[in-house]
Amino acid sequence: MLRFTNYFDTKTLDPFILEKGFEAVRYEATSGSVGYYHLPKNSQPLVDELQDLYHQIERRFNTIAIIGIGGSSLGIKAIDRLLRPSTPNAKKMVYLENSDPVAVMQGIKQIDKFRTLFIVISKSGGTVETMSIFKYIIHTFELTLDCSDQILVVSDEDSILSHFADEHHLRRFVIPANVGGRFSILSAVGIVPLTLAGFDTKSILRGGEGFLERFWRREEEHTIQKAAYYVSHREHYPMNVLFGYSDSFEEFGKWVVQLWGESLGKRNRRGERVGLTPISLIGSVDQHSFLQLIVEGPLDKTVTFMHIEHSEEHLMIPELSLSHLEKTDFVNGHCFNELINAQCEATLQSVLKSGVVSVDEIVWKAIDEVSVGELILYFEVLTSLSGALLEINTYNQPGVEIGKEILAAYFHKG
Amino acid sequence: MLRFTNYFDTKTLDPFILEKGFEAVRYEATSGSVGYYHLPKNSQPLVDELQDLYHQIERRFNTIAIIGIGGSSLGIKAIDRLLRPSTPNAKKMVYLENSDPVAVMQGIKQIDKFRTLFIVISKSGGTVETMSIFKYIIHTFELTLDCSDQILVVSDEDSILSHFADEHHLRRFVIPANVGGRFSILSAVGIVPLTLAGFDTKSILRGGEGFLERFWRREEEHTIQKAAYYVSHREHYPMNVLFGYSDSFEEFGKWVVQLWGESLGKRNRRGERVGLTPISLIGSVDQHSFLQLIVEGPLDKTVTFMHIEHSEEHLMIPELSLSHLEKTDFVNGHCFNELINAQCEATLQSVLKSGVVSVDEIVWKAIDEVSVGELILYFEVLTSLSGALLEINTYNQPGVEIGKEILAAYFHKG
Repeated sequence: MLRFTNYFDTKTLDPFILEKGFEAVRYEATSGSVGYYHLPKNSQPLVDELQDLYHQIERRFNTIAIIGIGGSSLGIKAIDRLLRPSTPNAKKMVYLENSDPVAVMQGIKQIDKFRTLFIVISKSGGTVETMSIFKYIIHTFELTLDCSDQILVVSDEDSILSHFADEHHLRRFVIPANVGGRFSILSAVGIVPLTLAGFDTKSILRGGEGFLERFWRREEEHTIQKAAYYVSHREHYPMNVLFGYSDSFEEFGKWVVQLWGESLGKRNRRGERVGLTPISLIGSVDQHSFLQLIVEGPLDKTVTFMHIEHSEEHLMIPELSLSHLEKTDFVNGHCFNELINAQCEATLQSVLKSGVVSVDEIVWKAIDEVSVGELILYFEVLTSLSGALLEINTYNQPGVEIGKEILAAYFHKG
Repeated sequence: MLRFTNYFDTKTLDPFILEKGFEAVRYEATSGSVGYYHLPKNSQPLVDELQDLYHQIERRFNTIAIIGIGGSSLGIKAIDRLLRPSTPNAKKMVYLENSDPVAVMQGIKQIDKFRTLFIVISKSGGTVETMSIFKYIIHTFELTLDCSDQILVVSDEDSILSHFADEHHLRRFVIPANVGGRFSILSAVGIVPLTLAGFDTKSILRGGEGFLERFWRREEEHTIQKAAYYVSHREHYPMNVLFGYSDSFEEFGKWVVQLWGESLGKRNRRGERVGLTPISLIGSVDQHSFLQLIVEGPLDKTVTFMHIEHSEEHLMIPELSLSHLEKTDFVNGHCFNELINAQCEATLQSVLKSGVVSVDEIVWKAIDEVSVGELILYFEVLTSLSGALLEINTYNQPGVEIGKEILAAYFHKG
């Protein structure tokens, strides 16, 4: 379970704006125009379906290689990182995403051809990084395509990748047409690899479902307040910092950056450029890096502190006093988890004291599947609410097309 | 060698401002008030001195554990990540930095007590994460402190950590008093662990020295232009994006974020909050994430594109045409490195076309030690120039002290 606290002033928020946000997302959900709201429920049968396949592959494969980029890898990595310490028997995951040759080679070196299941994920099927790496894999490992049970495909129903899969009789899974890539983590995109790796995806889905049910019942109003605050104060606070206190939040932060940046950086219906810039930090490390800028720099950021009350690991700082170093003995006999939680709370207090008022906090009781599902839906709904209030199309990404055209022209010319 | 190109308009920059920046950093260097300018030359004897120790430990240790955080780890990690593919025999490095118990445990698991050299790095000696982890290491591995040749210390001459080291007759190395933590990578902080791990630190230092010599000879004027542009346009562009096209830039990006954010986020002499917000992205991955916001969101960012012309890895995309997927065949027969370079160039062009004019580019011929040294000095000098033009103290971090006091009070209370 997560506990959300908004420290910013919610009293001055316009009730009309709050209702407008809620109505807009309710319409997205009930009209069926936006599909991700239904994934927590609709993906549950997929988990059941995957049980047979899970048992078939359980002994044969010890590694799952994900060939996908952006919305087809960030969410999987985020959940993998958060839940792996509590799921030690999960299969190894290798992520092949960037067209960086050093990264491709490092990924390839981790793959044993006979013990790896390859999952190719692309919504459109035409992603140049994904297709190039897929070809490299086929070539390097001399994979047979026809009827292969070592290759799975996740894509849109009618995509070119799906046609390819059907031609070679590969098993494939469908991303609903009304679910955008960066909102697709709880569709087959995330559920297929994570379930087959051995993660408890059913509980993640239940966590998401629970958050949504409470949201529709108006029991998660802090979410609407935060979206309304961010949008109405966007001239003052064009940047939104997520400060997660655990290395395990690193990939989750990247998932939020994509979700927030790509959804909200848009021209609105009047053609004006709008958007909010996401920044992901890790505590306590970034207390030694970015914090000074938050505390004494321009007051142009909101800050969300996120930490975990109870850790999987109970490491204690020994009762050891080193000569001349007694100054830090005040944490002796405490757990590292107490230290990092206290650091988060102390930093939150110091940021408030410094005059930064645009602060909120998300507390995890512990990292578990249900909380991961809640957090995913929380950030997705927060994004949708913000997009609705910005009066933009939250779900497209027209700005990246021109670069793809220039790229293709570059090679056709060459 | 690096090639720098500023695409933004340099003609309207005030020549007086450019001279003011240059004079300010020249004074910092010649007066001796700021020490990092002298590290490329002054650290070269340290590399020679370390050769004996290198040979002593060469067979005994296969792992170097760095116990340090912030300026005492970010730069080491950055260089390690960039140069490891071309230095395959370098010793394994384990970084123990965050007070996150999961991260501490993951680090500990990688350590074989008998084959690991521990290097404790803290400028002040009083960093609570570093000291707590050090104690945990001593306790867990039952390390003997007195006269240990398995523990090295890097700290200020007169720090509490140095007193501790002397009391136990541990070998220690000194960070010059006039070198701040985030500018210390080419002092003993980085040179000791990287040299002992087997990296060619002499060439890194020569790269830095070469950049500085050219800068003082006014042959790297693009640096001053960029600082002047960033500072004079800071109301329009409060954010500075560094878009590095290779996974290998991930840690370097974090080093830049610390350097830039912590140096420039300050109250100026009139007490006003000033600062520029650094954002580090990785291409091509973040073309699928943050790029949309740059292209269509508010024009509030500068963007620096950085890529590598020639890669260590010559991986070719096979001449393989998959049915229905012919659309991406235009890259067949090309190297992945050509693809990622073309993606960078295409994205740079598309960003310019979209109306973002605050763009520049850094091109590496290849990743090598000399270029790494150049880039480090480039960003350090760029930071110093910007700080001078912002009329702030670039080298302190007063904003983070209050959090430390609240933290200590929290434990003394509890």
